[in-house]
Amino acid sequence: MNWEDIAKELTVQTDSKIVLLVIDGLGGLPVRGKTELETAQTHNLDRLAMRGCCGLTDPVFMGITPGSGPAHLALFGYDPLRHQLGRGILEALGSEVEVRQGDLVARGNFATLRDGLIVDRRAGRIPTSECERLCSILNKAFAAQADPEIALFPGKEHRFVARFRTPGLADALTDADPQKDHKPPIPTAALSPEASKTATVVNHFLADVVKILEDEPVANAALLRGFSVQPSIPRMQDLFKLRPAAIANYPMYKGLAKLLGMATYKVGAETADLFGALESHYGEHDFFYVHFKKTDAAGEDGNFEAKVRAIEEIDAFIPRLEALKPDVLVVTADHSTPALMKGHSFHPNPFLLLAPTALPDETGSFTERECAKGLLGRFRSLYAMPLMLGHAGKLKKFGA
Amino acid sequence: MNWEDIAKELTVQTDSKIVLLVIDGLGGLPVRGKTELETAQTHNLDRLAMRGCCGLTDPVFMGITPGSGPAHLALFGYDPLRHQLGRGILEALGSEVEVRQGDLVARGNFATLRDGLIVDRRAGRIPTSECERLCSILNKAFAAQADPEIALFPGKEHRFVARFRTPGLADALTDADPQKDHKPPIPTAALSPEASKTATVVNHFLADVVKILEDEPVANAALLRGFSVQPSIPRMQDLFKLRPAAIANYPMYKGLAKLLGMATYKVGAETADLFGALESHYGEHDFFYVHFKKTDAAGEDGNFEAKVRAIEEIDAFIPRLEALKPDVLVVTADHSTPALMKGHSFHPNPFLLLAPTALPDETGSFTERECAKGLLGRFRSLYAMPLMLGHAGKLKKFGA
Repeated sequence: MNWEDIAKELTVQTDSKIVLLVIDGLGGLPVRGKTELETAQTHNLDRLAMRGCCGLTDPVFMGITPGSGPAHLALFGYDPLRHQLGRGILEALGSEVEVRQGDLVARGNFATLRDGLIVDRRAGRIPTSECERLCSILNKAFAAQADPEIALFPGKEHRFVARFRTPGLADALTDADPQKDHKPPIPTAALSPEASKTATVVNHFLADVVKILEDEPVANAALLRGFSVQPSIPRMQDLFKLRPAAIANYPMYKGLAKLLGMATYKVGAETADLFGALESHYGEHDFFYVHFKKTDAAGEDGNFEAKVRAIEEIDAFIPRLEALKPDVLVVTADHSTPALMKGHSFHPNPFLLLAPTALPDETGSFTERECAKGLLGRFRSLYAMPLMLGHAGKLKKFGA
Repeated sequence: MNWEDIAKELTVQTDSKIVLLVIDGLGGLPVRGKTELETAQTHNLDRLAMRGCCGLTDPVFMGITPGSGPAHLALFGYDPLRHQLGRGILEALGSEVEVRQGDLVARGNFATLRDGLIVDRRAGRIPTSECERLCSILNKAFAAQADPEIALFPGKEHRFVARFRTPGLADALTDADPQKDHKPPIPTAALSPEASKTATVVNHFLADVVKILEDEPVANAALLRGFSVQPSIPRMQDLFKLRPAAIANYPMYKGLAKLLGMATYKVGAETADLFGALESHYGEHDFFYVHFKKTDAAGEDGNFEAKVRAIEEIDAFIPRLEALKPDVLVVTADHSTPALMKGHSFHPNPFLLLAPTALPDETGSFTERECAKGLLGRFRSLYAMPLMLGHAGKLKKFGA
């Protein structure tokens, strides 16, 4: 029996409300002896740390640096070792492409084909407007055929997302991409018998693109990689009996949330917009995922000072969370992004839980090193969900 | 997906170097209020604890006392619940018997057979020289037959290791040992159809021994137990893309290391020899397992003072480790051996990690109780390897 089986059996719907604030990439490493979080003035978060209990979480397990997909899945109660999301599906989610059960999506490049060779895999990095024009030409041409339904969604420069819609698609396919310039285009190949029909569909598409774009001087072929079907992942409604909502303004996080059954809303780009949206929809749901991105972006840029400012910015909004009086409030991160490392890292995440049933520990401030002393100890992010559900009174007794 | 699958996919070879110092049986229990480690003066280890981050590890899980095999496997990144090494193979490794893929090995006793009964399972504990003489007689006799190749390797007193070499051997066999004196000898029996040929080979051997030794007055029969074939365990090169070396002077640890693909070297018996060998071969590898045995030996003897002295002895060599400037340095133990218990125990191991990406915690000295407060928390020894690889920059991101 794993956690998902237990969740299906033990969760109950109640009126209690859970707010999970994810401060993306929060954890860091010291510069002049202090981490970003230790450097920032965080009176509100420190006050919560004193009132609640703290710990440190590992998104996958010690030493593993997670992408945003697995790191968020774990926080939402899905084992990231069990549910893996393909690159294509994450790209599609990030590009706000609607993906239904059974759809196949892939990441695409426009490329230059000359004398039977791909001479430029990126078609000279054509401008985004050119990419939009080519996608529009192809979409018109493919609209003429009813089955399979094919749609292209332009991205930046030469990049696009391709979506195939017809019954029986599978994603056990090799990339249709020679990986290097001056090689002939390579068709996709099925990695399992179930995918052979899909390979035929995809290779027809690739040949059609070459025919349709034959008069284009630069971008006259397509490459596809990272084929993925909509993963069959249970919805949070079914698994946890929650009525969940995502309060996020970045497409990838909204897309991932939607995949799990969360309601999503149009939220402006400012931090205040997140809290405005949370307040507006607070009556409609019992689980709220609030996503704050600036900390991660500053960490990725290696900008220690900007990350400190981003932490102070989100800290100032904490009283608006408290004013809603959620039954359970968790403040944590998906993964660490130390400015020193300019990228995601394997370091554990500070984790803070506030609930009437939480035993306050001696954590005096919300930092990596204070959380290390917390009552919750060090645990896998996967256990954040049972912990929240438990404190929210949404989990029945296990066994008699 | 388990750690081994992830490791195969995510590890990359880099120039960074990892040193893992295993202080065998380090953890202990208090005598006059302090453990061996708390009693010892360990200025160097304490200094490292202040600079790095600490934790406590469980080799298998809480409450389980591991043998040296599983305890070391876990530290090397192999789940000891998944990879189990037979007693025969460990005995063979410890006796420096060369074991190839497909070989079957077993632990043997010379015994006294009289009137169809094993009247002494240890043949009166014949002297080691007698055991050597008998093995030599038998080896000469078996050398006459080409297949199966059979070789005996004398151990202490009545003990030996038997090695069988012929295609198709399996180790699903019952022990050929009556376990008690004054019982008839019992042949081995196959526990699976694949092992039936092997049972025939082994029982022929046992009958041959009785014939060859029929004129011997005391040791005139053999008993065999703990049959094991070379386990098919992936090499560290393939699993982790490491170029690993073992710096150890006890045969069992060298043998185990060799089984996992580590290079081994001739190392003298003194502690200084370990560090000399490490320094000599430091340019040739990127992972070094350094094994210090005296702490465990003193613990097994129940000699608290000797264990304290052994800890102080290894502490004095720490500056030589530091001088090599490894990218990741871990100091820990395979298992605990409290002098009070005169044997291995289930207590967790102090664990200390030093790396530029390690967030220093507030652990002020390297002891069991200080490590319990460390940032790494309490974790399974299995996660030591991903932790070391992560800090060494040898693990790519998991998922997108």
